[in-house]
Amino acid sequence: MPIITLLTDYGTTDSYVGEMKGVLLSGAPDATLVDITHAVPPGEVVAGAYVLGRSWVRFPPGTVHLAVVDPGVGTSRVALALRARGHFFVGPDNGIFSSVLRATEVEAVSLATPAVASPTFHGRDIFAPAAAALARGDALASLGDRFAGIPRRLSAADPHHEGKVVVGEVIYVDRYGNLVTNLTPDWVPSYAVIEAESLVIGPVRTTFGDVPPGGLLAYLGSGGMIEVAVRDGSAARRLGIGVGGRIRARLG
Amino acid sequence: MPIITLLTDYGTTDSYVGEMKGVLLSGAPDATLVDITHAVPPGEVVAGAYVLGRSWVRFPPGTVHLAVVDPGVGTSRVALALRARGHFFVGPDNGIFSSVLRATEVEAVSLATPAVASPTFHGRDIFAPAAAALARGDALASLGDRFAGIPRRLSAADPHHEGKVVVGEVIYVDRYGNLVTNLTPDWVPSYAVIEAESLVIGPVRTTFGDVPPGGLLAYLGSGGMIEVAVRDGSAARRLGIGVGGRIRARLG
Amino acid sequence: MPIITLLTDYGTTDSYVGEMKGVLLSGAPDATLVDITHAVPPGEVVAGAYVLGRSWVRFPPGTVHLAVVDPGVGTSRVALALRARGHFFVGPDNGIFSSVLRATEVEAVSLATPAVASPTFHGRDIFAPAAAALARGDALASLGDRFAGIPRRLSAADPHHEGKVVVGEVIYVDRYGNLVTNLTPDWVPSYAVIEAESLVIGPVRTTFGDVPPGGLLAYLGSGGMIEVAVRDGSAARRLGIGVGGRIRARLG
Repeated sequence: MPIITLLTDYGTTDSYVGEMKGVLLSGAPDATLVDITHAVPPGEVVAGAYVLGRSWVRFPPGTVHLAVVDPGVGTSRVALALRARGHFFVGPDNGIFSSVLRATEVEAVSLATPAVASPTFHGRDIFAPAAAALARGDALASLGDRFAGIPRRLSAADPHHEGKVVVGEVIYVDRYGNLVTNLTPDWVPSYAVIEAESLVIGPVRTTFGDVPPGGLLAYLGSGGMIEVAVRDGSAARRLGIGVGGRIRARLG
Repeated sequence: MPIITLLTDYGTTDSYVGEMKGVLLSGAPDATLVDITHAVPPGEVVAGAYVLGRSWVRFPPGTVHLAVVDPGVGTSRVALALRARGHFFVGPDNGIFSSVLRATEVEAVSLATPAVASPTFHGRDIFAPAAAALARGDALASLGDRFAGIPRRLSAADPHHEGKVVVGEVIYVDRYGNLVTNLTPDWVPSYAVIEAESLVIGPVRTTFGDVPPGGLLAYLGSGGMIEVAVRDGSAARRLGIGVGGRIRARLG
Repeated sequence: MPIITLLTDYGTTDSYVGEMKGVLLSGAPDATLVDITHAVPPGEVVAGAYVLGRSWVRFPPGTVHLAVVDPGVGTSRVALALRARGHFFVGPDNGIFSSVLRATEVEAVSLATPAVASPTFHGRDIFAPAAAALARGDALASLGDRFAGIPRRLSAADPHHEGKVVVGEVIYVDRYGNLVTNLTPDWVPSYAVIEAESLVIGPVRTTFGDVPPGGLLAYLGSGGMIEVAVRDGSAARRLGIGVGGRIRARLG
């Protein structure tokens, strides 16, 4: 049974996700549909790319990932279907697939816009039919013309050095108020001390239990990034820091 | 594999949807369950009917649509199961199925209330068992007595003419703050100018890209109605207009 | 087809639920996944236990219930898989399974922590793999060492008598603002009068229709507990009462 994952900024209040699922199951009746999230903030491609990047790797090869965070719907941005590392991806060419496009071979086609497609709901009328076709086994090449360009990648906000300090930033805030940074263990040696804006957090810990309830800590998060959290609390609220906030690793 | 869609105002915080799904899968183990939404505002049958009306048409024939927005639970309103256009529908007789009941033959039965049914949770104890029975192939007629009446339809809030102006209204506001109106292309010729309350919006555009970011526009929405939106913004917030707000098409 | 239910406090905004589902479907491709809720307030085991207790009984035997409300992740709390009444349960040993542990035989094993497990995401790295193994038919005993202890049960907040008054309390507030109490019909004879804090509500009614719109009522809820509600409104807001608020049954 093929799997189709769905990631959008459509919310779960309106009919939009349901309409897409009707199209998916009409085209691929055997598919297992899995919601990743529909709560990406409207139009926030960076957040969508982060959530997709953490999720798709957990699914078996052959899974079709439908990712529609598409502020450019109705403009000239290309509609893509692509294959990478044995998975399929369908969505707009706006950087949403950045995590997939690093260091791998990608085969991509551009999807045509059917005459009957609503100019404001390509998720239902262009992307969902393509995802259903891939789920039922249609060849990628049968879905559109080969895409000769390079799919868009978000400019990687990599950390940088300022003397003996590695300067990173918050790239995502999760439901618990944990601050996910762009600092990885490659950038942060074990003796480093983490700072959030001007506040010293301390060394990189292993888990929440390493500090008392209510304590601040830095630790290696489950997505492979250094995170800053409050045990049983919200670091975002405590520190007043959001996406773009500076997180530093002081090396000496 | 039969499909059962679910649309309720139960929210997704409590156990209610989970309990219904347990009943559905106990009765129809092979069913594919699809959430349309559980975030209809409590008791708002009009919003539920709009969302259902857009969704069910996207599913294949034979799908069972369970729709429980039921402020009258525990009163004498009838519990219905009906067949229309090859689909099945289960829910209260309060207008939630209005979109299905226009211009079509309907076969309906009234569902009995089992002695063990909770008087406050017919979704679990009356409607879900009926939906499961239909999904596993039971005949509609086996579920209850033929419903001799006419299922309730919401009084259609149709537009009307005032001289050279077609007067419509907002019937739904979606997650993006787009204002969905009851104006269809039948009512609005291509040379018309759309007004929201006293503000001139302009002609009916094709898509968001036809105005600059932040711009107001009217366009033919993906559900077949004229909508008013702000590109990359919220028309509801910008204009301070909600359900019932006047949207006019000026013809000359 | 095996069923796996999911109940967490992960929310549906981040990637966490999606990552878990990827692990579940990688291990048990035929499984039907059912979300109970992911909106348990972060770390609130009592609320999670209440929602799980109402839900699992509605599913067929053999269902695997994955329940991860786990404020102790990264501490020494035990990770459990257990079988009770023909169902399987996987989650932390913190009381989340209290409803299952009453008056029944339980077979439990403690799950080992793989070296590669993230210390902060046992839902993905310990609990989901165990749930997938059970869903595909692995024996419970193959998942870990027999758990010799007694799984934790939340201290039952049972009502008590004060003279001719049974004193109970609110244990849960649902999406509608209905106040679910720990008072059952066993404690509350039919002639009792219900009071919420110092306000007289009246006798236990059958359903909302027994009072006019906007009226306050007590009734036997669909989960078997006495509840206090406002017809077409919120008792929590009207009365300013939440979890822990006193609800009394006056017997004479």
